[in-house]
Amino acid sequence: MAKPEKLRFAAAPLRTMVRSMFEKLGSTPEDADVIAEVLVWANLRGVDSHGISRIPRYIELFEKGDANAAPHLRVTKSQSSIVMVEADRAPGPVALRRAADEAVSLARKTGVAWVSVTSTVHTGAIGYYTNRIADADMIGIGIVAGMPNMAYAGSNVAGVATSPLSIAVPSAQHGTVLLDMATAVIALGKIAQFKAAGTPLSPGMALTESGEPTTDPALADIPLPMGGAKGAGLSLMFELLTSVLCGQPILTEFHSSQPQGRRHRQNGTLIAVDIGAFGPVDEFKHRVDATLQVIKGLARSPGVDELLYPGERGSRVYKERSSKGIPIGAAAWQKLSQDAQKLGVSPPEPLAAG
Amino acid sequence: MAKPEKLRFAAAPLRTMVRSMFEKLGSTPEDADVIAEVLVWANLRGVDSHGISRIPRYIELFEKGDANAAPHLRVTKSQSSIVMVEADRAPGPVALRRAADEAVSLARKTGVAWVSVTSTVHTGAIGYYTNRIADADMIGIGIVAGMPNMAYAGSNVAGVATSPLSIAVPSAQHGTVLLDMATAVIALGKIAQFKAAGTPLSPGMALTESGEPTTDPALADIPLPMGGAKGAGLSLMFELLTSVLCGQPILTEFHSSQPQGRRHRQNGTLIAVDIGAFGPVDEFKHRVDATLQVIKGLARSPGVDELLYPGERGSRVYKERSSKGIPIGAAAWQKLSQDAQKLGVSPPEPLAAG
Repeated sequence: MAKPEKLRFAAAPLRTMVRSMFEKLGSTPEDADVIAEVLVWANLRGVDSHGISRIPRYIELFEKGDANAAPHLRVTKSQSSIVMVEADRAPGPVALRRAADEAVSLARKTGVAWVSVTSTVHTGAIGYYTNRIADADMIGIGIVAGMPNMAYAGSNVAGVATSPLSIAVPSAQHGTVLLDMATAVIALGKIAQFKAAGTPLSPGMALTESGEPTTDPALADIPLPMGGAKGAGLSLMFELLTSVLCGQPILTEFHSSQPQGRRHRQNGTLIAVDIGAFGPVDEFKHRVDATLQVIKGLARSPGVDELLYPGERGSRVYKERSSKGIPIGAAAWQKLSQDAQKLGVSPPEPLAAG
Repeated sequence: MAKPEKLRFAAAPLRTMVRSMFEKLGSTPEDADVIAEVLVWANLRGVDSHGISRIPRYIELFEKGDANAAPHLRVTKSQSSIVMVEADRAPGPVALRRAADEAVSLARKTGVAWVSVTSTVHTGAIGYYTNRIADADMIGIGIVAGMPNMAYAGSNVAGVATSPLSIAVPSAQHGTVLLDMATAVIALGKIAQFKAAGTPLSPGMALTESGEPTTDPALADIPLPMGGAKGAGLSLMFELLTSVLCGQPILTEFHSSQPQGRRHRQNGTLIAVDIGAFGPVDEFKHRVDATLQVIKGLARSPGVDELLYPGERGSRVYKERSSKGIPIGAAAWQKLSQDAQKLGVSPPEPLAAG
């Protein structure tokens, strides 16, 4: 199959466009700036499913009233190491970047902070927030609880969510080690990529809409949990640790007869751990480097060229796209630039092909 | 194949035997009591690979000096929500139960506590410790970093550990929801069960000692990581979050040329989150029940009789074994009772068959 046509854009003008679009949609300049930063970061890292292609969906959520462009975040502290952010249906980047910053400032005082976020929408790539915590010389851990779209182990309907887990650890030489994984065998965005490429899925990855196992990416609708009971159990636990802990359950309402139960929303938790509380930060970072060198030097299976640590591929894509631009499919770009023009925002020109 | 012969024992006399054995080995009565409690709990839950069958291995570790029967735990607090337990090669149950109790008392004050344990051996079933935290109306999270025995994604040698993750959440009607999962597709104890039963493994579960893929449980030596890069990445992260954070790296020393690098040891982290800091605990527990009811009521795949929440099977086994006794294979019992007699401890009689 021919590769679909892609245009390339520099990150800065894309950020400017996104910022202007969200300002027109009602966000404050500060919030619009954060949203642009988080979405374009995902594109720079190669996580295009969580990048600017999400903007049309945000617009839809604003129009339906499911998301709030001018939210009033309520930030409360019930205990010295716990903060709760009630996000008033803010776009995920606004709620979770605030949460990351709260986590860092609190962990600086007490060593560890737990920040719960409720009533947000589309958190985006949660690696952004844990990475931000790692930039402050802390360990960042993040989980999200979302709308059911994955089968629970032994079930054949969308009962739980493909809720992700991210862990970020800073190093001295290797940048930030950044794990960002869904609890599903395969993310919905990846299924779309298989579909676009016409490549069949492996067995055990997904079910059709009616719950039959399939390897046809065009029919695949419900991803299966990673490791069966393990991925399903993790996803359920993330719901208990975020939504249920904060009194904002998603699963019970989604599976109830209340129409409001299916309204899109997400909850999340960020944890920051201050590395300096355990010893000198520089020494820690060098120990991380030494560990990564050991991993990269392990014997490889036949046919494997290189062993990668979590986030290594994303860092490379980030560097490449920072210099050569972010590729965006022609159809996605057309939709996005139409949305921009409707808002009175001029989309940037693509970089010259080369 | 005929099922191998099993004897059944009541939990209480097994605990008495284990307690007496560890006292003879040099443990204080208090420590021996904790070890007996934790090991027999694993048997009661059906996690026999982490139960009293481990005692011969503890004896071996004491004899080699890798474990310390009379350890002096050093407990230090560097920040208000962080405790470090340097375990002086204490048996895992002694170090980690102390850590769980520290986590609970600290989280009661600050909302969340992070307790790092270094220099312990054989942590046992980490579900015991997170379950203990849940008994205090908190959420318990536990991770362990162990000796390399699992392949890293793309590698064919034992490069990282099958390090487990456990999360425990209390409910009102369903007991404690208890996830306890290895980062491998299949635990080493499970491979031994397949071998004993003569059942082949599924492809993608394990490698031979020389790194070749195999489905023969007699040749399977190196488990593969759950979800490839996901399980491998999690295992690496657990090493960074425990061993490397506390300056006690396992991976770099194991893969170095230093003979001490291969000496058995484990590190662990327990986190406690005080549910009461988020709202009334009773209401939380009822929301957990409601969520579990939704899970159990989801549509089932053909041939599936029942959907289980994490820990549900273990709770059932616990009830059954508490009333009918703990089954122990004849060969394992013979080894164990010989070890007991060598120490001058009389092993209990099995329950009458029936």
